[in-house]
Amino acid sequence: MQQTRLDTARIRAARRVIDPVFLNTPLYRCEALEPLLGCAVSVKLETANPVRSFKGRGTELVASALAGRGERAVVCASAGNLGQALAWSGRGRGLAVTVVASRFATAAKLDRIRALGARLELVDGDHELARDRAAAIARSDGIRLVEDSLDVETCEGAATIGLELVEPPYGAAPFDTVLVALGGGALATGVGHVVKALAPGVEVICVQPLGAPALTLSWRQRGVVTTESAETIADGVAGRRPIPAVLDDLLLVADDAVLVREESIVTGMRMLLDHAGLVVEPSAALGVAAILEDRARFAGRHVVTVVCGSNVDVDAYRGWIGAGAAPS
Amino acid sequence: MQQTRLDTARIRAARRVIDPVFLNTPLYRCEALEPLLGCAVSVKLETANPVRSFKGRGTELVASALAGRGERAVVCASAGNLGQALAWSGRGRGLAVTVVASRFATAAKLDRIRALGARLELVDGDHELARDRAAAIARSDGIRLVEDSLDVETCEGAATIGLELVEPPYGAAPFDTVLVALGGGALATGVGHVVKALAPGVEVICVQPLGAPALTLSWRQRGVVTTESAETIADGVAGRRPIPAVLDDLLLVADDAVLVREESIVTGMRMLLDHAGLVVEPSAALGVAAILEDRARFAGRHVVTVVCGSNVDVDAYRGWIGAGAAPS
Repeated sequence: MQQTRLDTARIRAARRVIDPVFLNTPLYRCEALEPLLGCAVSVKLETANPVRSFKGRGTELVASALAGRGERAVVCASAGNLGQALAWSGRGRGLAVTVVASRFATAAKLDRIRALGARLELVDGDHELARDRAAAIARSDGIRLVEDSLDVETCEGAATIGLELVEPPYGAAPFDTVLVALGGGALATGVGHVVKALAPGVEVICVQPLGAPALTLSWRQRGVVTTESAETIADGVAGRRPIPAVLDDLLLVADDAVLVREESIVTGMRMLLDHAGLVVEPSAALGVAAILEDRARFAGRHVVTVVCGSNVDVDAYRGWIGAGAAPS
Repeated sequence: MQQTRLDTARIRAARRVIDPVFLNTPLYRCEALEPLLGCAVSVKLETANPVRSFKGRGTELVASALAGRGERAVVCASAGNLGQALAWSGRGRGLAVTVVASRFATAAKLDRIRALGARLELVDGDHELARDRAAAIARSDGIRLVEDSLDVETCEGAATIGLELVEPPYGAAPFDTVLVALGGGALATGVGHVVKALAPGVEVICVQPLGAPALTLSWRQRGVVTTESAETIADGVAGRRPIPAVLDDLLLVADDAVLVREESIVTGMRMLLDHAGLVVEPSAALGVAAILEDRARFAGRHVVTVVCGSNVDVDAYRGWIGAGAAPS
């Protein structure tokens, strides 16, 4: 294939840098889901770690490189998961971490960012405004800005998931399709790069909410499409302004990009709870939602879905699973 | 220490026999739980595998040995998790598996046993009656009876968890205390054997429900105590007739055995859901329940709790977490 910005040798080397608590995550069949979905389903579970998402894989690379160069501070914009992960990785290496987030972000994610010792700055707007503000802080303070999906460490960190899917001893690609959530593109280009490099027969399908379709529309039109708004419960993937370099990579590694309805995401979350015993955030249910919306496409196939995060506000989650407010 | 029936070299060797899907499970700090519990808390997560409990570690040893000897069939009594695991391990090796269970067992567990291709026989009584019936089947059919906790493979399989707690690269025992659910005793004697052999300074505390205290009472009296009934939501640990050989081992490896109230188990399940994003069955919340009931004892310490299973009936689980019935 044509070259993405990612490098398979660097991705292999990344596994020696990333804290092992984020690596070699569970990969297993969920047979209880299969009668409901009409296909064989394996889960790659990225929630059983200190930050409850896959983002630590990338922030470990960023923070390790910064600390190695003697840097003392770093800033990022985040919908919440990148910020938590950068706070965790930076704390362990003596870095002062600033996270800029929308004040509408998931409260539990913001609470965890603060609890991990990062400075949290909220903007009165959406994630794109947070990106602008983080860039301004980086310029004025002269510190490293971590840009999710643009910075290749964020993609190559995520790409280590791909190695664990297709290479022994952790994975061996007996499956036909990988479903990945599509937001900024780090997860999709990372996993996609490795799958296409090492197991090109496996299909890579990106899944985004209908209400936040910017990168999917861009992929389909082969050119950046921005949207006026992003309306979805899947806060982790609610961008409006795709990054051209990321789109270029995505065009090389994605076999398809599909959009799913909010109610399918909710049904997916509920199925994963009731039949797999997994709490997932909406972004992590996108893969199951894609199967639900096109059973015929996946019938009889073996599908891996990357369960990429589990950070939810308790009351919102209870609402989604149809369970009322938390008891006091 | 005096010798248990378990052997550390065999336990190391077991790691080469057990399907890797059950090994090297996540071990990580859950800092969000810590302000609520007053101590550092790490989770050893045994739910992210095809049978959603740790029991596969032991059944892999049993089934592998049987298949290696050309055996064709096996029977066990089970509250549900051992049966699922034996069904899974047996299916992969061409063994005909029979599971005997109480008709009052958790329905989701019974459904999964059937779905995995085992023959399920229900008895109109509790788990102890199921044990008697399984023994009768083994005698009449001339097939191997797997007795949980008595058969050393079930203990040594569980003991591989201990290796992953105290030995690099997976664990390194920076913690003070391990909390393990106590039922038949396989998990407690297995983990306890390894911890006491390799990290004797780490405290091993067994936790059992007040409503099903037989093995705890036996440990305290240093002799088998049976109970008339076992009343607890923690179906996985609801035995009434401790096995003498298992008690002997437990006396060598347990530093304490404590009993907890049902409401503490429920609070523990809810905390693990809301603050750690983990669905757990009641037995897997016993460790958190023990901390809740004696915060002073654990204050400032680093505690590992083994989250040993997540097989719940959906409606019961929603009731425990205060969430009403499943939406249709």
